[in-house]
Amino acid sequence: MKEFARKQREENRIVGLVPTMGALHQGHLSLIKQARQQCSTVVASIFVNPTQFGPSEDFAKYPRTLSSDTEKLESAVVHCLFLPEAKDIYPQNYSTYVNVDGLSERLEGRIRPGHFRGVGTVVMKLLQIVQPQVAYFGRKDAQQATIISRMATDLNLDAEIVVCPIEREADGLAMSSRNVYLNASDRQSATVLHRSLQAVQLLLQNGIRDALSLQSAMHRVLKEESRAQIDYVEIVGAETFEPLTQINRKAYVLVAAKFGKTRLLDNLLVDFSDKGQLTIEL
Amino acid sequence: MKEFARKQREENRIVGLVPTMGALHQGHLSLIKQARQQCSTVVASIFVNPTQFGPSEDFAKYPRTLSSDTEKLESAVVHCLFLPEAKDIYPQNYSTYVNVDGLSERLEGRIRPGHFRGVGTVVMKLLQIVQPQVAYFGRKDAQQATIISRMATDLNLDAEIVVCPIEREADGLAMSSRNVYLNASDRQSATVLHRSLQAVQLLLQNGIRDALSLQSAMHRVLKEESRAQIDYVEIVGAETFEPLTQINRKAYVLVAAKFGKTRLLDNLLVDFSDKGQLTIEL
Repeated sequence: MKEFARKQREENRIVGLVPTMGALHQGHLSLIKQARQQCSTVVASIFVNPTQFGPSEDFAKYPRTLSSDTEKLESAVVHCLFLPEAKDIYPQNYSTYVNVDGLSERLEGRIRPGHFRGVGTVVMKLLQIVQPQVAYFGRKDAQQATIISRMATDLNLDAEIVVCPIEREADGLAMSSRNVYLNASDRQSATVLHRSLQAVQLLLQNGIRDALSLQSAMHRVLKEESRAQIDYVEIVGAETFEPLTQINRKAYVLVAAKFGKTRLLDNLLVDFSDKGQLTIEL
Repeated sequence: MKEFARKQREENRIVGLVPTMGALHQGHLSLIKQARQQCSTVVASIFVNPTQFGPSEDFAKYPRTLSSDTEKLESAVVHCLFLPEAKDIYPQNYSTYVNVDGLSERLEGRIRPGHFRGVGTVVMKLLQIVQPQVAYFGRKDAQQATIISRMATDLNLDAEIVVCPIEREADGLAMSSRNVYLNASDRQSATVLHRSLQAVQLLLQNGIRDALSLQSAMHRVLKEESRAQIDYVEIVGAETFEPLTQINRKAYVLVAAKFGKTRLLDNLLVDFSDKGQLTIEL
């Protein structure tokens, strides 16, 4: 892989990396599409990274669909698939970890201790191996994307981190490799995450900026679905993930909930134009 | 600095980096000499890295001798001096740290908690900024050099880490920027570190491989100097820094002691040739 990367540099090609854990869906393909628009060489990686799973999490049963993934990557015209094995990424005596303090301990990090340390470490390694000018991540995992951006800035990495919009099913459910875990009832109920964010969108459009009011509205919607076990409903600054009481700068409205044993995430991004005009990405 | 580094790559120059905290002495200059022999562009950095000093350590009073350092670098014909400021290396909201688990918690790491996390982080940043093909470190700080080598391997960095021999004063004292702290009596006593390692060297040459015997011999020498407050006398595997009971592979014999308030380190490296022949670097 390093040899391939070196050759791309020598030929002055712009390399875009789309790191994935496989079980590819339209969300991943949208990242590849954007990479193809901006780069001359697109590399996708598939690696189910053991260090980002907790001991009681779904590492063993995480969906592995290599043959259909490969077909999708061929259709999407990826120039290179990097498919490392765990023993090569984490050989014996492996012991180096990258952590983004603060950001990594909040929300998802509190519920999944060590998760973001695993994510940061593997992304660091992928960036060093593939040496892309640009790397693409989905906004569905907003905290992950923010942590990776922070890491790239802090460690003076060359790679630009691009965060792409959430792809959704027709009924609004954010695409995720874990959606396949949902049974029919939970699958139907899971749209409540998107609906709770639509409620926030409506309030924001009506000038409500107060975090408590927005969170209450979300809780009201979420409580209508008895199958949803809410982990958190939070409104945070987009850079630090510290809670906001007022949406007065770039912010995420985040929701995490379990349906059966399946944890799902969704979010809405609020930003302000130079003229102070509010924009919403759902 | 990144711009300079990019230009070197475009011109296919081999960049060697010598990271320092300034207060340059013959030890640093020997690193630069080796870099000049192996590289077409030599970059030295001077940065007294706050994150590797504990709250009760000597960050504020660490010797800063920039004008004499600059003269030495000019005489040594370094192509570039990278002299960043703390506010640029660690801007507001800085939060990413690189840690080598295990290795970083032993010996120096136990006495100086967080020290190696600071070292690993700043070296990672320097390697990303300067992007050298080779980076040079002194063997006097053996644990530091081993941690940096481990980090470079683990994180798939391109830079090769070269560990250079210890430079010594005429009386055997290992060169260190902290030697200037020593008063005349302590300066004289401090040669006991080297003498204790010479005792080990003699025993090794006489076939003694047993760690306890070697450590006892060191303690006997060290106790002759009442000014030496011993922190540790250890014999460890050179890769993992785990204690050995027998020297049967590449190993460090390490000593750390305080003279007054000044902590000094020294070590001896034992290696074996392919034919099992023992070599000693003091």
